[in-house]
Amino acid sequence: MDDDTGTLPQKGNFSEWYNDILWRAEIMDVRYPVKGLYVWYPYGFAIRKHVYTQLRNLLDRDHEETLFPLLIPEQEFMKEAEHIKGFEDEVYWVTHGGTTPLEVKLALRPTSETAIYPMYALWLRSHADLPMKYYQIVNTFRYETKQTRPLIRLREITSFMESHTVHATWDEAEAQVEYELTLTREFYDSLCIPIIISKRPDWDKFPGADYTMAVDAIMPNGKTLQIGTVHHLGEHFSKTFSITFEDKNGEQKFASQTCYGISERCIAALISMHGDDKGLILPPVSAPVQAVIVPITIGKRHEDVLAAAEKLKNDLIAAGFRVKIDTRDMRPGAKYYWWELRGVPLRLELGPRDLDAGKVMAVKRTGEKTQIELATVTDEVTRVLGEITEAIRVRAEVHTKSHLCTVASMDALDAALNEGKVAVVSWCQHKGCGDVIEEKTNASILGTNARSQYVSATEGICIVCGKPGKATLVGRTY
Amino acid sequence: MDDDTGTLPQKGNFSEWYNDILWRAEIMDVRYPVKGLYVWYPYGFAIRKHVYTQLRNLLDRDHEETLFPLLIPEQEFMKEAEHIKGFEDEVYWVTHGGTTPLEVKLALRPTSETAIYPMYALWLRSHADLPMKYYQIVNTFRYETKQTRPLIRLREITSFMESHTVHATWDEAEAQVEYELTLTREFYDSLCIPIIISKRPDWDKFPGADYTMAVDAIMPNGKTLQIGTVHHLGEHFSKTFSITFEDKNGEQKFASQTCYGISERCIAALISMHGDDKGLILPPVSAPVQAVIVPITIGKRHEDVLAAAEKLKNDLIAAGFRVKIDTRDMRPGAKYYWWELRGVPLRLELGPRDLDAGKVMAVKRTGEKTQIELATVTDEVTRVLGEITEAIRVRAEVHTKSHLCTVASMDALDAALNEGKVAVVSWCQHKGCGDVIEEKTNASILGTNARSQYVSATEGICIVCGKPGKATLVGRTY
Repeated sequence: MDDDTGTLPQKGNFSEWYNDILWRAEIMDVRYPVKGLYVWYPYGFAIRKHVYTQLRNLLDRDHEETLFPLLIPEQEFMKEAEHIKGFEDEVYWVTHGGTTPLEVKLALRPTSETAIYPMYALWLRSHADLPMKYYQIVNTFRYETKQTRPLIRLREITSFMESHTVHATWDEAEAQVEYELTLTREFYDSLCIPIIISKRPDWDKFPGADYTMAVDAIMPNGKTLQIGTVHHLGEHFSKTFSITFEDKNGEQKFASQTCYGISERCIAALISMHGDDKGLILPPVSAPVQAVIVPITIGKRHEDVLAAAEKLKNDLIAAGFRVKIDTRDMRPGAKYYWWELRGVPLRLELGPRDLDAGKVMAVKRTGEKTQIELATVTDEVTRVLGEITEAIRVRAEVHTKSHLCTVASMDALDAALNEGKVAVVSWCQHKGCGDVIEEKTNASILGTNARSQYVSATEGICIVCGKPGKATLVGRTY
Repeated sequence: MDDDTGTLPQKGNFSEWYNDILWRAEIMDVRYPVKGLYVWYPYGFAIRKHVYTQLRNLLDRDHEETLFPLLIPEQEFMKEAEHIKGFEDEVYWVTHGGTTPLEVKLALRPTSETAIYPMYALWLRSHADLPMKYYQIVNTFRYETKQTRPLIRLREITSFMESHTVHATWDEAEAQVEYELTLTREFYDSLCIPIIISKRPDWDKFPGADYTMAVDAIMPNGKTLQIGTVHHLGEHFSKTFSITFEDKNGEQKFASQTCYGISERCIAALISMHGDDKGLILPPVSAPVQAVIVPITIGKRHEDVLAAAEKLKNDLIAAGFRVKIDTRDMRPGAKYYWWELRGVPLRLELGPRDLDAGKVMAVKRTGEKTQIELATVTDEVTRVLGEITEAIRVRAEVHTKSHLCTVASMDALDAALNEGKVAVVSWCQHKGCGDVIEEKTNASILGTNARSQYVSATEGICIVCGKPGKATLVGRTY
C-alpha cells in the first residue's frame, strides 16, 4: 500500500522495528485520524483470520459462540461497585442519538460482564442448565490516556475474545480457570509463543474478581506483554445480577463464574516474537501465504517453467496449503525481499534446471535451502513446513529462557531487569514489600504461583523483609 | 434457553410467528434492556456463521477483507453534505471519555464511507493500484425512532457486510455494480431466497450516490424486505475526500466508487421465507445441524442401536456433514418436535428393525420419508440434502411468483396490494405521479428497471398521468 522506501530498522531497535514492520508488512495502518484507532490492512486481517480460527477451534470444543450488544445502559454498568471503580475513568459514553440527548447514557463496552450477566440471570434457572460456557469475539473500547500502540494499547480493541462461564460451585469455577489456562497454553503453543502464567497480586486483579491468572510473553526488549487473563469471579457478579439456580435439593443458589480474555495482543506477540531483521516470520498455521512459488524464467524456457509453476501451485492448493505464485515483472531478488518482509514461511524457486531434474528449491524463511522432489512435493512441503514451525518454536524458547532468571536480592533484581530480564524473586506477599520492590526497580510484580518450564520457582525469604516468601515474577511491562 | 411452553403461532399470523420463532428456535433474545438491541443465542449465531461463510466465500473471489474503526471523528463525518443529511438524525454520538468531555465528538458508524475514504485517499496513488476492492463485516449503529424489530430494524446492526470499491472510470464502477448484483443473486440463490432487483427512485437512493440498485425479498405477508443494496457513488466521495490517482498519462484524476451492503436482514429473510407452522426450515448450507440422528431404542437392543447410531454419526461427520445424535431421555415424538422447530433439514431414525435391514429412515423437514441404505449412507445423505434444498427452493419460488403481478390502473394496483402482492405498474418517473401512487395506495415505489424472473416488466403508459412510463415495482415495505 506504500512505497517500499528505506529499509526496516534492525530488530535490536525493537520499538522502531515494531512500528515499521506494521506498515511495511501491511498489517496495520496507523494514519487513521483518531488517536488509538488503527486500520487492519487486508494482509494483517488475513493473519488475524488464521490466528482467530485457531482460537475458535479450541474454544468450540466446549464453549459456544454468541454475540451480545456493544451498548450497555448506565444503570447496568454501574451495578457492581468494584467493577465500576476499575473502569469508570476509561469508559466512552454515548449521550446523543442524532441531536437528541438520550434518556439513559450508554457505555461502549470496555468488557462485557455488565452486558452479558443480566441475560445470564434470565437464562439460568436450574442446575441442569450448568455449566454455561459462552464466548464472543467483539470490539471493545477503552479511553486510554497512556501512550497508545497498535495491537498493544488501543482505544478500540477490535478483536477481543471474551469467554464467560457459569458454574454450580466455586470449585468447579476454579477447575474451569485451570482448563482455560490449558486452552490458552495450547493456543499460544500453536503460534510458537512461549508463555509464563502467574497469579496477579491483589492490586492488579480484574475489578470484581476473586483472583486473576495472567499469561505473559517476554518481548524482544525484555518487557512482558500480558496476552491473556483468566478470572475467577466467585459470586461477585452473580450476587449483583441475581444469577441464581435451583440446585438438586430445590434450593436457590448463587452461581460461581469465570471470565477469560484474549485480544489482538496475541498478534502483537506473534509478530514481535518471531520476526527478524528481514521482516515478519509467520508460523505456517498463521500465514496467509504458507508457500510462495517464484518461477525463474531466464531465456527461452519461459512457458515451460510457468506451466510447471502453475501446476505446482494447483497441486499444493488441492492438498490444502495456502499458496501464491509470483509472476510479477520484477527481479527474483526483489521478490524474495518482498515475501521475506511479509513472513511467508516457505519459498519455492522453480527454474529450468530444477524442472529438468524433477525438483524445486525450497528456501525456509528460517534460513535453510534444500531441493525437494516434485513427484512427492505435497508430502515434502508438509515436512518442511513442520521443520519451519519447529525452528520458529526453538528460537522463541531460546529467547524466552535467556530472558528469565532467579535472583535473591534487590541489587541482583535491579541488575537483571536492567539487562532486559524477567526475574523470579521471593516475596512475602505483603503490599508494603511489593511497593518497595516495584518502586526501587521501576518494575512490576507480575504475580505469584509462576508457571514456566523455563525457570525454577522455588520459595525462599522475601528480598525486602526477610520473612518467608513465595516465588514471584518481576518484570518491566507494556 | 426457555421452557417450551405453549405452541408456535401459525405462520399465517406472520408477525406473531416471527416474534415467537426467534426465541423458540433460540435465534435472538429480545430481552436485552435497551430498545433495538438484541442478543444472538448460540444456535442463532451458528446459523449466522454458516450464512456469512457463504457470503465471505463469494466476496473473497475478488475482494479482500479488512477492518476499519467504529468511531468516526465529527469533522470527517460532516464532510459530504448529502451523506450528512441522510444520516444526521440517526447517528449516535460519543461525547465523553470517562468523565472528560472529548475535544472532538465521535460518531458510531452508521455506515463506513467517512471512516474508510480518508484512508483510501492515502492508499490510492496510481492507476496501477486500481481497482481496489475491500470489504468488512462489522457492527453499525442507527438511532432508529421507528418501531424496532430483531434482525430487521435495529439500533445495533451486528453483522453489516459493507464492500467499498474504487475504479478508474464511471463505467468500470457501473460494471462493478452489476458484478456485485450477480454476487448477491448467487448468495441468495445459495440460501434459496428469490430476490427482485430494481433501481430505487431518486428520493430513495443512498445519500451521496449517483444511483442505488436494491435487492428485495417478498416476505410471507406480502411486504417487501430490502436485503441488499449496491450504490454507484460516482465521484461524490472521491471529490470530498480527495481520492485521486495518476492515470497512464501522468494526470491526476478523481476515482469512481461503489459501495455495497448486506446486513443480518439476510437471516430475517432466511427464517421468514422458509419456515412453516412447525418452525424453522433451514437450507442445508445454512444449518448448524444438517442431520440429526434419533436412535429408537425400545427394549433390549438398546446398546446395539446406540453403537450403530454413533458409527453413523462418525461416518457422516467424516464425510463433512454437520450431524448430531440425540440420546436424551425423552420420547422420540418430543425429540422430533424439538428438531423440527429448529429447522434441521434431515432426521435419521434408527431402530432395531432398520438396523437388521441395513437401513435407516430418512425424514425430510420438507415432508417426505424414505428408507436409505446404511452401506451407501454418505452418498444417500448428499442426495437427500440436495432434494431438500430443491424442495425449499421451489416452495420459495412458488410463494414469490404468486405474490407478484402486473397491473394497469390505480384501482387494480390498490386491489393487488391489499391482497398482499407486489405489483409492476407503468410510471412516468416524475415525482408528482410517484407521490400520487404512494399516497393513494399507502405503498412505496420500490424501483424501476425491475429484474425478476417471476414477472414480466414491459413498458406502458403511466397509471397516473397517462404519459409514456417505465415498468416500476410497487409494494408495501418493511
